Amino acid sequence: MEIQIAVAKINKYAVSESGDTLEVVERPNGGLSVVLADGQTSGRGAKVISTLVVRKVISLLAEGVRDGAAARAASDYLFTERSGKVSATLNIISVDLQTSTLVITQNNPSPVLIAREAKMECLNSESQPIGTSRNIRPSICEIPLEMGLTVVVYTDGVTHAGERSGKSLDVCTVVDALLEDANPSPQEIADALLAHAVRLDEGRPSDDISVVVLRAMPMTGDAVRRMTVRLPVSPI
Amino acid sequence: MEIQIAVAKINKYAVSESGDTLEVVERPNGGLSVVLADGQTSGRGAKVISTLVVRKVISLLAEGVRDGAAARAASDYLFTERSGKVSATLNIISVDLQTSTLVITQNNPSPVLIAREAKMECLNSESQPIGTSRNIRPSICEIPLEMGLTVVVYTDGVTHAGERSGKSLDVCTVVDALLEDANPSPQEIADALLAHAVRLDEGRPSDDISVVVLRAMPMTGDAVRRMTVRLPVSPI
Repeated sequence: MEIQIAVAKINKYAVSESGDTLEVVERPNGGLSVVLADGQTSGRGAKVISTLVVRKVISLLAEGVRDGAAARAASDYLFTERSGKVSATLNIISVDLQTSTLVITQNNPSPVLIAREAKMECLNSESQPIGTSRNIRPSICEIPLEMGLTVVVYTDGVTHAGERSGKSLDVCTVVDALLEDANPSPQEIADALLAHAVRLDEGRPSDDISVVVLRAMPMTGDAVRRMTVRLPVSPI
Repeated sequence: MEIQIAVAKINKYAVSESGDTLEVVERPNGGLSVVLADGQTSGRGAKVISTLVVRKVISLLAEGVRDGAAARAASDYLFTERSGKVSATLNIISVDLQTSTLVITQNNPSPVLIAREAKMECLNSESQPIGTSRNIRPSICEIPLEMGLTVVVYTDGVTHAGERSGKSLDVCTVVDALLEDANPSPQEIADALLAHAVRLDEGRPSDDISVVVLRAMPMTGDAVRRMTVRLPVSPI
């Protein structure tokens, strides 16, 4: 089996910095974690917040701290740093090779989609964004890593896409249609979902949008770990 | 213009953990850094060392510390932690969007290849691995980010490939041939180089091998940032 993870990420229209921050880190006991935070508002201020949250989480995960504890720590840290005045959403998706499970930690009202075999599930937990009070708890879900598992996580730029024109995006239906179609790669799913959202916003995203898709696929070929990153830069 | 980065990484034959650690992080002032460390020996012990080094470097870079200072700090830290008894090689490749340059920081006797237009250069600096004494300096090279720039960085698993059978890999020639051929993606270059090394080791890599390739390519399509990760896992 191999785990494939894809990320697609675009800034709010005419804003040079994304308020969403995403990092992928190795777990000290095997596997990796994807950490995604969306800072309140957009631009430079939001970037500072989401960066602060993601850095805290990845440094704790790197020390072997459990995901839930890392999310609580990030919340208390943000609360202390910003006197409870600023919030951020946080998602941690961990491939834990020690337990052979996927651990999904949410402090984000946007749902997480989980598709197994032909069944699609929507983790629509009651979780709160972090940073605004003490004792904020993440919602945590642990599922076995099994072939065909697909997980889709996104920031609220997807949820709010099309609001300006009274439309909205049914993420479940889009992902379901993609999965029925063929055997799409995670990048195809992430790109399609992002493109849908941007289309609803008439080509001018009204918020930063990030989409993360993880799939457990049959092993194709060798035992090489691979990573690719594409970073568009303005003409210089 | 867009920057594409690709990584290919394989473990030493019959060893479950790689002594090479690689992380990609966002830079606080724009751009990103790839940090690659190779811990002395292989397996669990080497992994602990390379992780310790990479963590130190990425946490400093995240705070805005310059690459050279981060490398020196990591060296002193490793020296102090392990009483100078353990060494590691370190490479930092940074896309700095503030200065529109690529900054290559080396504490690694393995050369770094830089191809611009039709010219191939081999950065064969006198840099020492970190951790074995005080005052170890990195060698630093800063070059403008320009179209067609290709940079190839690797750990000594590539340099030593084939030694068991008296063969060796001329990385320059391999990369040159690939670049002349067509317009290969960074992943194609990384995969080809890794495959060459594994072939010289008769399918059983005698050390952990990591290859990082960065290219500045013409912008293809949208302004979406993308990342994909492939993680092979043993059958569970």
